[in-house]
Amino acid sequence: MKSDPETLSLEEIAIAFREGKLKAAELTEACIDSRNELLGAYKSWQPDVARGMAIQADNAFADARDLGPLQGVPVSIKDIYAVSGMEIFAGSPRHLPDKLCVEGPFVRCLRDQHAVFTGKTHTVEFACGGLGVNSHWGTPRNPWDGKTHRVPGGSSSGAGVSLLEGSALVALGSDTGGSVRVPASMTGSVGLKTSFGRWSLTGIFPLSPTLDTAGILTRTVADAAFAFVAIDAEEVSGASQSISRVDACDPTDFVIGTGDPALWEDCDPGIVDAVQIALNELGEKGVRITSSNLPEVHGAVHLLNTSVVGEAEFGEFLASELPAWQDTLDPLVAHIFANIQSVSAIDYLKQRRLICQLQRSAPARFETCDVVASPTVPITPPRLQDVAEVEGYRPSNLKALRNTYVGNALGLCSITLPVGLDAAGLPVGLQFLAPRHGEDKLLSIALCVERLLGNANERLGKPPAFSG
Amino acid sequence: MKSDPETLSLEEIAIAFREGKLKAAELTEACIDSRNELLGAYKSWQPDVARGMAIQADNAFADARDLGPLQGVPVSIKDIYAVSGMEIFAGSPRHLPDKLCVEGPFVRCLRDQHAVFTGKTHTVEFACGGLGVNSHWGTPRNPWDGKTHRVPGGSSSGAGVSLLEGSALVALGSDTGGSVRVPASMTGSVGLKTSFGRWSLTGIFPLSPTLDTAGILTRTVADAAFAFVAIDAEEVSGASQSISRVDACDPTDFVIGTGDPALWEDCDPGIVDAVQIALNELGEKGVRITSSNLPEVHGAVHLLNTSVVGEAEFGEFLASELPAWQDTLDPLVAHIFANIQSVSAIDYLKQRRLICQLQRSAPARFETCDVVASPTVPITPPRLQDVAEVEGYRPSNLKALRNTYVGNALGLCSITLPVGLDAAGLPVGLQFLAPRHGEDKLLSIALCVERLLGNANERLGKPPAFSG
Repeated sequence: MKSDPETLSLEEIAIAFREGKLKAAELTEACIDSRNELLGAYKSWQPDVARGMAIQADNAFADARDLGPLQGVPVSIKDIYAVSGMEIFAGSPRHLPDKLCVEGPFVRCLRDQHAVFTGKTHTVEFACGGLGVNSHWGTPRNPWDGKTHRVPGGSSSGAGVSLLEGSALVALGSDTGGSVRVPASMTGSVGLKTSFGRWSLTGIFPLSPTLDTAGILTRTVADAAFAFVAIDAEEVSGASQSISRVDACDPTDFVIGTGDPALWEDCDPGIVDAVQIALNELGEKGVRITSSNLPEVHGAVHLLNTSVVGEAEFGEFLASELPAWQDTLDPLVAHIFANIQSVSAIDYLKQRRLICQLQRSAPARFETCDVVASPTVPITPPRLQDVAEVEGYRPSNLKALRNTYVGNALGLCSITLPVGLDAAGLPVGLQFLAPRHGEDKLLSIALCVERLLGNANERLGKPPAFSG
Repeated sequence: MKSDPETLSLEEIAIAFREGKLKAAELTEACIDSRNELLGAYKSWQPDVARGMAIQADNAFADARDLGPLQGVPVSIKDIYAVSGMEIFAGSPRHLPDKLCVEGPFVRCLRDQHAVFTGKTHTVEFACGGLGVNSHWGTPRNPWDGKTHRVPGGSSSGAGVSLLEGSALVALGSDTGGSVRVPASMTGSVGLKTSFGRWSLTGIFPLSPTLDTAGILTRTVADAAFAFVAIDAEEVSGASQSISRVDACDPTDFVIGTGDPALWEDCDPGIVDAVQIALNELGEKGVRITSSNLPEVHGAVHLLNTSVVGEAEFGEFLASELPAWQDTLDPLVAHIFANIQSVSAIDYLKQRRLICQLQRSAPARFETCDVVASPTVPITPPRLQDVAEVEGYRPSNLKALRNTYVGNALGLCSITLPVGLDAAGLPVGLQFLAPRHGEDKLLSIALCVERLLGNANERLGKPPAFSG
């Protein structure tokens, strides 16, 4: 086997495992060696657990037991997923009560496939934020700036970093307003947010039942498609039919819309350029790109900025289920809930109604295009020092989530793939929004785009070595 | 054919139609003749529509087109169901906007079967109340008191009356806190509330999406079982499998629990006696009756009395969708919403959480019994004059709903069947609560009970002739 097995695609790894050319233990050891402690991706780094699970996977292969596509694949898990035998902090200072530690069908599905769990990655406290900052446990470093500590995006703050450093090949995240796609975009990874209601949320710490979705981060779209199919089994998926395989479509098979101008406005230097260059390349290679409407963006931005639905739902959860955690909230999280007691039931229900209206009007926006493209995140990943206090944090956080939150408010599925670097040399993601339960077509299109543009390695190169 | 076709059971009618011994037009004419205008069951009495639909049903029979068990059967429809070609007032002073007039799958299913629609029956304004009083349109008379105007129960206030007078053989109702079962009990009819989520609510004016359910009133349990099966088709039912037939079980096949003492306390004279006599008779005939627990009653009564969930949901709906209707609310309805602006989102969500908890704990209560029995309504149907003002109305209304609301808060299915008369000579209903989606067993048990005790006609006799 080649000396660097973690550079293989998931599909190549799966084949190598089954042909006996690679051991899960060998791959897992390579991932363990790749971990860079200084990047701080993990809340709970568990190499011994990983080694034990890798041996189990290898034993199953030796017994000719093929338990699923992710057998033997190192996976990092955001610490808002309950995992049997591991504590869950959800970014808070103390581990959560037992009733919130019951493993759900998503993790169970990976366990049943004999995937290898490398540990729990850091998250913003209770997943309440898009930048990745955590005052309790520290903020993982964004590997794309070797000098300055920049944020890695959040709330799945350790997920993208675990991929970049190579300690895991799939990273579990969750996405209530962009918490999979923002860290994926900011770290030059691929992030897939599933449609509202598609994957079971049981066993995932709840932020907002109206908006929460599960998702994955991977190094490439090819890996995302491979992992998606592996996970989208009956017990995880609420779709009437899960997908058995996704292949790239042809460049002429789909139309990319550019959505609403609001998605493209007021981005930090180099971001729109990088996305536009990528779209131009696609256009030159035969992909149809059209201006399209998505006026629902404005309703979604209103929802994001007025912050009622998710905040009320989580505020009530915290008060009812974790009252002792209210007093120790990270100041960057606490400010969100400062006025939550004054929100009326009527206003909450009005915003829920608005979400329903947005979701009802969404399908019509995909009549003239298959996906809506935009920059994933309008801002360069900020320097940690600039967002360490509420005053600087709040506007950056809201802006980071501006384009991704649309997907949550509208119940869509969405993917981000890295297409370039911005003026500061930080990764830029191209976001596609697609109709609810349209994961198969979305992935098929994204696969085609990745083939046309090149994957992260080919397009962005390696992140600057971390200078310590 | 015998001269009084509307005294036949639905099953006998269905057979007579198919053997050519009875015409839908003939049955419909008999129902039209039975209408007693002074009882005031209908907001919109439509004999010509009924005659036209009866002819269509007969034509289909003549062409050997059998479109379903309710073909040719006269059905009254509570005026919160949208019916194509009929206005909908939902008990309010003005007909509702077109967007609320789109016929849903429940009515469509009856139309497709060529059932005969006799008209729209009265309802409490927006279904917000359990006594049946409507200050805009008048309150139907309870036929069981020939001298004094007593309430018929609500909110489906005209439904039971339409059955009693014989103008319809099935009456559509809806049940958010007891609005099918209370009028059924108060008029000596059978009322079936389906499980939360079982029958589509599309096309039914929404009161509380968290608690609303659809249901039917019939003259007997046998008719309820017949109509339930006819309606519980795929497009109406959210159950994984609809039921093709329900037969009575044997007396030794089931256990009746008596639930929580709170269901039996503080009832008006003669009500507990009538129910207890019925249970004793069942016991003598071999039915096992046991004391059982249902502590969730107390949480449900708390929810009913604090009135947050349904009130907030409907208050918001009214404010968002029908603002002009806010100013003309029946005072008996308006008082419910007087303080709704001051309810916080947190309190609303806390009560939603309580409902989820109640629903999760409910299944365990049916481990030692199949149904929980109680009086359906703890009060004698009040005289209209005693509940015409808010002061007298409010306590009676809350108490009328006390035992039925448990079924809504816990998401259960439930039936009421008439078992006797109270000290005032008004009907007393026996309520069975059964597990969510347990309609088949519930009906099977209720059929057995009806056979053992006799149906309304046999047990209660005829209501006193209306004295005018």
